[in-house]
Amino acid sequence: MSNKKKKAADSEVVMTELVLPNDTNTLDNLMGGRLLHLMDIASAIAAQRHSNRIVVTASVDNVSFNAPIALGNVVTLKAKVTRSFNSSMEVYIKVTAEDIPAKKKIVSNSAFYTFVAVDQGGKPIDVPELEPETESEVELFEGALRRRQLRLVLAGRMKPQDATEVKALFMGS
Amino acid sequence: MSNKKKKAADSEVVMTELVLPNDTNTLDNLMGGRLLHLMDIASAIAAQRHSNRIVVTASVDNVSFNAPIALGNVVTLKAKVTRSFNSSMEVYIKVTAEDIPAKKKIVSNSAFYTFVAVDQGGKPIDVPELEPETESEVELFEGALRRRQLRLVLAGRMKPQDATEVKALFMGS
Amino acid sequence: MSNKKKKAADSEVVMTELVLPNDTNTLDNLMGGRLLHLMDIASAIAAQRHSNRIVVTASVDNVSFNAPIALGNVVTLKAKVTRSFNSSMEVYIKVTAEDIPAKKKIVSNSAFYTFVAVDQGGKPIDVPELEPETESEVELFEGALRRRQLRLVLAGRMKPQDATEVKALFMGS
Amino acid sequence: MSNKKKKAADSEVVMTELVLPNDTNTLDNLMGGRLLHLMDIASAIAAQRHSNRIVVTASVDNVSFNAPIALGNVVTLKAKVTRSFNSSMEVYIKVTAEDIPAKKKIVSNSAFYTFVAVDQGGKPIDVPELEPETESEVELFEGALRRRQLRLVLAGRMKPQDATEVKALFMGS
Amino acid sequence: MSNKKKKAADSEVVMTELVLPNDTNTLDNLMGGRLLHLMDIASAIAAQRHSNRIVVTASVDNVSFNAPIALGNVVTLKAKVTRSFNSSMEVYIKVTAEDIPAKKKIVSNSAFYTFVAVDQGGKPIDVPELEPETESEVELFEGALRRRQLRLVLAGRMKPQDATEVKALFMGS
Amino acid sequence: MSNKKKKAADSEVVMTELVLPNDTNTLDNLMGGRLLHLMDIASAIAAQRHSNRIVVTASVDNVSFNAPIALGNVVTLKAKVTRSFNSSMEVYIKVTAEDIPAKKKIVSNSAFYTFVAVDQGGKPIDVPELEPETESEVELFEGALRRRQLRLVLAGRMKPQDATEVKALFMGS
Repeated sequence: MSNKKKKAADSEVVMTELVLPNDTNTLDNLMGGRLLHLMDIASAIAAQRHSNRIVVTASVDNVSFNAPIALGNVVTLKAKVTRSFNSSMEVYIKVTAEDIPAKKKIVSNSAFYTFVAVDQGGKPIDVPELEPETESEVELFEGALRRRQLRLVLAGRMKPQDATEVKALFMGS
Repeated sequence: MSNKKKKAADSEVVMTELVLPNDTNTLDNLMGGRLLHLMDIASAIAAQRHSNRIVVTASVDNVSFNAPIALGNVVTLKAKVTRSFNSSMEVYIKVTAEDIPAKKKIVSNSAFYTFVAVDQGGKPIDVPELEPETESEVELFEGALRRRQLRLVLAGRMKPQDATEVKALFMGS
Repeated sequence: MSNKKKKAADSEVVMTELVLPNDTNTLDNLMGGRLLHLMDIASAIAAQRHSNRIVVTASVDNVSFNAPIALGNVVTLKAKVTRSFNSSMEVYIKVTAEDIPAKKKIVSNSAFYTFVAVDQGGKPIDVPELEPETESEVELFEGALRRRQLRLVLAGRMKPQDATEVKALFMGS
Repeated sequence: MSNKKKKAADSEVVMTELVLPNDTNTLDNLMGGRLLHLMDIASAIAAQRHSNRIVVTASVDNVSFNAPIALGNVVTLKAKVTRSFNSSMEVYIKVTAEDIPAKKKIVSNSAFYTFVAVDQGGKPIDVPELEPETESEVELFEGALRRRQLRLVLAGRMKPQDATEVKALFMGS
Repeated sequence: MSNKKKKAADSEVVMTELVLPNDTNTLDNLMGGRLLHLMDIASAIAAQRHSNRIVVTASVDNVSFNAPIALGNVVTLKAKVTRSFNSSMEVYIKVTAEDIPAKKKIVSNSAFYTFVAVDQGGKPIDVPELEPETESEVELFEGALRRRQLRLVLAGRMKPQDATEVKALFMGS
Repeated sequence: MSNKKKKAADSEVVMTELVLPNDTNTLDNLMGGRLLHLMDIASAIAAQRHSNRIVVTASVDNVSFNAPIALGNVVTLKAKVTRSFNSSMEVYIKVTAEDIPAKKKIVSNSAFYTFVAVDQGGKPIDVPELEPETESEVELFEGALRRRQLRLVLAGRMKPQDATEVKALFMGS
């Protein structure tokens, strides 16, 4: 881990996109996969800002799509690094969609992406620690460990029994 | 639930794609978000085949990216419905990448997407039950309930304590 | 002119984009025309935010490109309405580009786009007046009249002799 | 300035494009920014033809959009170099749009783009002088000096008072 | 067949395109399929010009690709209707590619596309007869019958024995 | 010719694609040229699988388009090498389109593409012989010689009189 800490706010990225025809399905709504693509780009830039490195996507956590986003709507994506672990970074990304002429905010969902910082040869390389400042940044920082355990369990790289943080959650204790 | 069951094999989709320049990052590797986009399209077609309906993406479960897929590689996506719940369907999708001139299969990952079948007005509509046949189809069918509980918990629509299938997993009992 | 004034800040749009291969020329630099396209989209959203209407591009003022922006760079576009005239709005847009791994802000340029708010049939429709607040907003608001005269002269819709604001500029009085 | 003059006609480029869905806004009309992108490509090819060099966009002068161009229309862009200055070239581009089944020429606008010829390392390099032949080519050649002064003033690289050609225009003398 | 004849020259279309990264294969050369796509669009516009109708592609004859066209090359497509048959039109299209900085015309190939004119409901509708003027237009007009027979034979809609024009060619008589 | 034979089945490629807005014309149907582009990519992958080489498109034989394929339809492309000749391979590709919600298979057409295997420098290089197994593979293998002669005649590289296989076809003997 490189020794200088960086603030969560320093990694923040705002991306505003217009939903174009080729982004939509036969109901003229934004396809889920296209949104996942935009979220990946916005989150990757946040991870770049934190690490000043080339980054590659390591994983995306469960994402739910709640309401349709229509052709011509404006989608705003806000991404911020929540915590770093050696060469990897977790990014929290929040999406809102607006039908501006109708003055309606249409939908809001969110996701966690993780990225690994790499050198020019593609080898993982350590990144600065993250220093959360606001209340919500601290909350995201603290939850990162539990989400990381769940990710490792789901990827088959940790036994469920060893995921102490996740177990606590499901035991309700 | 409409009364005629359909087989898992009837929904199978094979999609073969060439990694083009605009799909890649500065290391000339396929961007994770672009792959999520392709996986969404392939899975959606599988869900269409099962339901003979327009479908919209409801969620994607945790996806891990293990190895880089390079510009010019061939990506093969195989998607198949694992189980249906009223108007929703879970699809299992498996991705392999090949560097054909180098005779190398490069990477293999997988994911679960869920879709909801809708009518022309976008309202959810019931789909046929799925009938698994092979051993792996049965295994995927049976695990679908546990993954569904986890999805509901992660989306904040089920209390962790009520997710009996997931609890059993983490308790190791 | 509709009677409720709106603040400049309410229209602000931030758009962050990654320079992808298809955006670049044979020197691997972002093509000017592609940047003009992105600037048009970001500015249009700002004009939408001010007017809560569908907007169409009416003109773009002289734009200079000072330094190359490379493949993989991150481009940030910030757009804000400067002033409205009946159904038209002038938008100021500022562009910065960064090579994040190299910790370099590479270039900064800016432009003025104008948009007309229209109804569903494409007919122009009045928009709220703009109320500038900060010093730079006031300066942009005041310069808008001169830029508008120059635009009308260049489009052949005002005689140079009648463009009093522009004349004053060139006479140095 | 390399010593062999070239004719304006030698640089002429005709580009015909079909307006596709992804080029359009929610009124199904071509977005201004997309047209600016096409104009940049056509003009750049004209500048390449004059200089036999790689060229980069230096600036675009004020462009007005007068009438909507609809989905499915055919857009014709004609570009020709008007004059060269050391390593830079001014290109005049004229756009017409047609709804061919309706036998309607829909709109016509025009713009001036400037390009700089560069070597493989991106360094400016001199280009041939332009030799105008027809009456309209001579007129464009002669106006190029005035437009260049205005461009330098607007880019903050010439004082308005020194722009003698532009001053004359606004003084009506 | 509508009664007013139209000249071949009236349908001529010139389309100039820059080869962009996403158009290329791993050798950085234009993919054949992408060129077929561009040829289809240019030819379709020529057929639109002749018929003043919406047109749909009916067939493309054998196309050979002789030499690679590189990233950054300029491709020029020239299309012209050669003959009409009731609701269908044959279009001849010629492609040249240039590496302008290297002053090299790189390749030249050609093809015949056929289109059917349709009304808004997609039903075939008669088009004007074509009147060839130049020597090469007459030659293309006369060869159109033989190519049409070959097309019908290859599509299984004419018996080889009945293709008198084609037979004559192969018998060398 | 390299000495190890390969089976036709080893080269098989299945590609499933969703018709998106930008693939369509003003009747909301898939453009012929876009389909030719997809067919080229699928066939090229089949030729790669047979040769384990980079391949470049050499030609496409006559292709007919019989019925419109609509926006939102699913297109399935199946490609398989039919025969190899030194460094070139002929690929047979079959296309079906479905409107899945309407339970309609809409259209089916087919084509022959030929590819040349090349080394990294773009020089042709021999490929394995193809060994047909099923009845239809044998039929395609045997017809390949006749199609090759026709291709050479149409490209002006063989005299019609020397195309013995094609002559026999047209003589009906």
